[in-house]
Order: sequence, then C-alpha cells, then structure tokens
Amino acid sequence: MAARVLQTLLLCNAALMLHLLLPCAGLSLDTVRDFLTREEDTIIFSLIERTRYPLNRPAYDPDYLGAGHGHGHRLNASFAELFVSESEAVQSKAGRYQSLQEIPFFAYRVPFTLAPPYNFTSDLYPAAAFVNVNDAIWSVYFNNLLPLLAKNGDDGNYAVTVDSDLACLQALSRRINYGRFVAEVKYRGDQQTYTSLIQSKDRDALMKLLTSEAQEDVVKRRVEKKAVVFGQSMALGGPTETGVNNSSQATFKVDPSVVYNLYDQWVIPLTKQVEVEYLLHRLD
Amino acid sequence: MAARVLQTLLLCNAALMLHLLLPCAGLSLDTVRDFLTREEDTIIFSLIERTRYPLNRPAYDPDYLGAGHGHGHRLNASFAELFVSESEAVQSKAGRYQSLQEIPFFAYRVPFTLAPPYNFTSDLYPAAAFVNVNDAIWSVYFNNLLPLLAKNGDDGNYAVTVDSDLACLQALSRRINYGRFVAEVKYRGDQQTYTSLIQSKDRDALMKLLTSEAQEDVVKRRVEKKAVVFGQSMALGGPTETGVNNSSQATFKVDPSVVYNLYDQWVIPLTKQVEVEYLLHRLD
Repeated sequence: MAARVLQTLLLCNAALMLHLLLPCAGLSLDTVRDFLTREEDTIIFSLIERTRYPLNRPAYDPDYLGAGHGHGHRLNASFAELFVSESEAVQSKAGRYQSLQEIPFFAYRVPFTLAPPYNFTSDLYPAAAFVNVNDAIWSVYFNNLLPLLAKNGDDGNYAVTVDSDLACLQALSRRINYGRFVAEVKYRGDQQTYTSLIQSKDRDALMKLLTSEAQEDVVKRRVEKKAVVFGQSMALGGPTETGVNNSSQATFKVDPSVVYNLYDQWVIPLTKQVEVEYLLHRLD
Repeated sequence: MAARVLQTLLLCNAALMLHLLLPCAGLSLDTVRDFLTREEDTIIFSLIERTRYPLNRPAYDPDYLGAGHGHGHRLNASFAELFVSESEAVQSKAGRYQSLQEIPFFAYRVPFTLAPPYNFTSDLYPAAAFVNVNDAIWSVYFNNLLPLLAKNGDDGNYAVTVDSDLACLQALSRRINYGRFVAEVKYRGDQQTYTSLIQSKDRDALMKLLTSEAQEDVVKRRVEKKAVVFGQSMALGGPTETGVNNSSQATFKVDPSVVYNLYDQWVIPLTKQVEVEYLLHRLD
C-alpha cells in the first residue's frame, strides 16, 4: 500500500505544479502588512487552542521514549520531535513546502519533494530565500512560551497536544520567516540605501533602517487586544454582549500580556533577524 | 528508516498506555456543557482559518489525480481524501484515537494502533461507544459548508488548504460525536425513563426527550455571536476598541449566519442523532 500511496502522491505533486500560481505576485508594503496582521489571528487562535491541554511534559522529554530510538540525526528524539517530523513528511509529500511561505522544522529528515522545484524568483531573491530561524523558533516555543501557556498536568493525550503545538509552530514560523518577504519589499523600495549597507555588511545600520518603534508598538498593543477579544469566555446577554469583560485576567484563555511579550521579545526581534539575514544575502 | 520510526512509535504507544488517565472521569452535565461550549470556539477558529484559502476545487475532485490511484477501498481518491488518510495514519500511530473523544474519518485505512485498547468503560458504555456520524460530517462539510466558507479561486496551495479542512473536520467530529458522552450523562440521570424508551426502540420519544429548544436556541445565538467577535477585523483605538463593529457583515471573516445555520441544520441535529443511536445500543 505504501508504494501505491507514494506513487499517488508523486502524481499529485506533478499535478500540483500545473496549478502553482505566484502566491505573492504584486508584493507590496500593503500586502505584506495585511499578511502579517492576518497571521496574528492565526497565531493567537493556535495559542488559545494549545491551552486546552495540560503541559504533558513527557511528550517533550527525549528520555521518555527510551534512548536510541530517535531517527535521522538525533539519537534521542522526543515524542514531539517524532510526531512533528512524521507530520511534516506527509505535508512535504503533499507539496506544502513548495510554497515559500512554509518552511518545515525537520527539513533534513523529510523525504524530498520529488516534483521539480517551484520557480519563486519573482517573489524572493533565490540566493536569500533559504534564510529562516526555525531552530530558534522551536527553542523559544518549547523553552520559553509553552511553560507560560500550558497548565501543569499530564492527561496522556500527547498526539492531540503535540498536534496543537505543531499548529503554533507553523503559525509562528510562517510569520517570523515572512521577514524575507518584508525585507524584499523594503529592499525594492530603496535599493540604493540597502545596497550600500549590504555591501558594507553593516548589520547594525540595516537593523536600524528596518526598525520602526512606533509601528512595533502598534503591533504589540494590537496582538494584546486580540488575545483579550479572542480569548474571552463568552456568554449571551449582560454587559459582555458586544464588549469584553476586562475585570480579570483569569477570564482570558491566554494571558494577553504573554502574547504582548511574545511579540516584544521574540516574534518582532526574530522577524527582524530574518530580514537582516535575508538582506545580507540579497546581492549574493 | 521507516522501520525504525515504526518501532519507535510502537514503543511510544506502549509508553502512552502507562499515562492514559480517564479523560472524562467525573462526567456530569456541567463538564459536558463546558466541553461543548469550549469546542464552539475551536470550531469557529477552524472555520475562520479555512477562509484564508480559496476553494481550491481540484483538491476535492476524484478525477484530478487521475483514475486508479486511490488506495484502500476507494479507487478514485481525491487529494483531500489521500491527505486526510495519510495524516490520520500518523496521528493513529501516535495514539490520538486511543482517546474516545477522537474518531478518525478513515479508520479502516489507518494502520491499527498496536497498543492494547484503552479501557474506556467508566466513561462510555462499551457496546455503544462505536457510534459516530463521521461519514455524514464529511459529506456535510465538503458539500454544504465549504462552498459557503471559501471564496472561489485556486492558488495551488492544496496541502495547507486541506490541512485546514482537516482541522475543521476534527473539531466538528469531536463536537458532534461527543453526543455519546451527552447521552451517557443523560441516561445515568434518568435510567428508568430511558431504559423503557430504549427497550421499545422508540426513536421519536428519545429524540423528544433529548431536545430542549430553549437550550438549542441559546447555543445557536451564542455561536453566531462568537463568529462576530472572533471573526472581526480589529484595529487599535476608535469605536471598536473593546466592542464589535456591527456595521457590516463584510467585516467578518466568516458570515455569522453561516455559523448559526451550521449549528441549526447540522451540528445540533447530528449530535442528537448520535445521542439517539448511542442510547439505542446502551443496553446491548
């Protein structure tokens, strides 16, 4: 059966190629901003969904499954690593990563997509398109964010739990690595200035040029507000009919300040890191 | 590598068994209502997320991949069917369906979970636990709901699109098939009445006993309101700061009336169908 499925998926990939349109044709500051704003909702929905399950710590413990049973490059893989890499393998066979907006966490373990590579030259500069910070995202998510998100406890539902981790990881990865598209748009808008800074490899000046504290402040306050609105427990009637009950943090499924800090400390800085790295390869 | 992964996942399943706690110990009308209310958010989030992608019709067309390449029982499988069954196979290996709250759509195609079956007798009556309406959910989702949800169009991103279909299907399946738990609680609360109706196989009387139009009306209006609140486009400041901009349906990512009708025409009736079927097997 496996061979037949593989054959079907290969055919499927070939068929996909006929239908791949340019996902970001007409890349502009407006389309980039719209994407980032919409992705905020996806990130917050996924964080809220993860709070349905307790921490389920054994799912992340490399010792839990016993030593020597990891596959690929890591000898001691956790349940979460196995689950994510197996899930990404299916998604890869189905062509998910032919879109430049999607980057797997276990690229090197995933069977190579056998369809011809997608021609993305009109969106991203090919020599810089590889830039991503998925390793940092993985680490931040499991080490810094998850402990703030999930209550202690273990209900044994590791598959649904890690499936919801994967949704968070994919949303964060898409948002942060979208810095490549942001950088491309900014580069095209002021090639002269950027070219000079890229040629002198001036990271600090690039970072400064890419930074707008006022705009970042708007984003951070907006995601905090979205966490309030999307994470409220809603009843019919009463004072919360159309508004939000602000009386207590306890009524929100995800602490809005956690979302504010997520953007402040990780999402925005990592996105800018992607932007700088992309630009440093923009003239390769 | 595949053998090693399988071996690891088997070990993993065995390890899972040690940690499986009773997910619904202390089943009561309150816990059941809390679950159903919380699942509303999950359903609406997943519907909103599906609207990020166009319809992508070829993903659902059995002829798209060419004849004869389906696997399992169906000769002409669509991309969506292949993607869902492959994804469910990974989730099955990881133990997702050991929880009675989760039921796969392609059970017969999924490699059997090799861990010993989970002992669920304290939650559901074993001879009735199999009841589910996943085939109806699949059909309603793709034939009735999806055309109301997704704009016409084809961007070739079939993997992410069907991945988001799967999230909708899983949320709807969990909610509707949770009718088994609802029925169990109701049965325990009034064994005498239910036993008599079950013994006489009186479907109509059971349906009547399980129906509370007032409560159903509350649910329908609440999910409509959640669609308004969760699906709004939010900006900082202005009149929408803490409230909801009701000025136009066009500002909502999913038409709230579609969510109202989803519950009115399918979610609530199918849940009650599950309840009745479960009860009819409750004395087997």
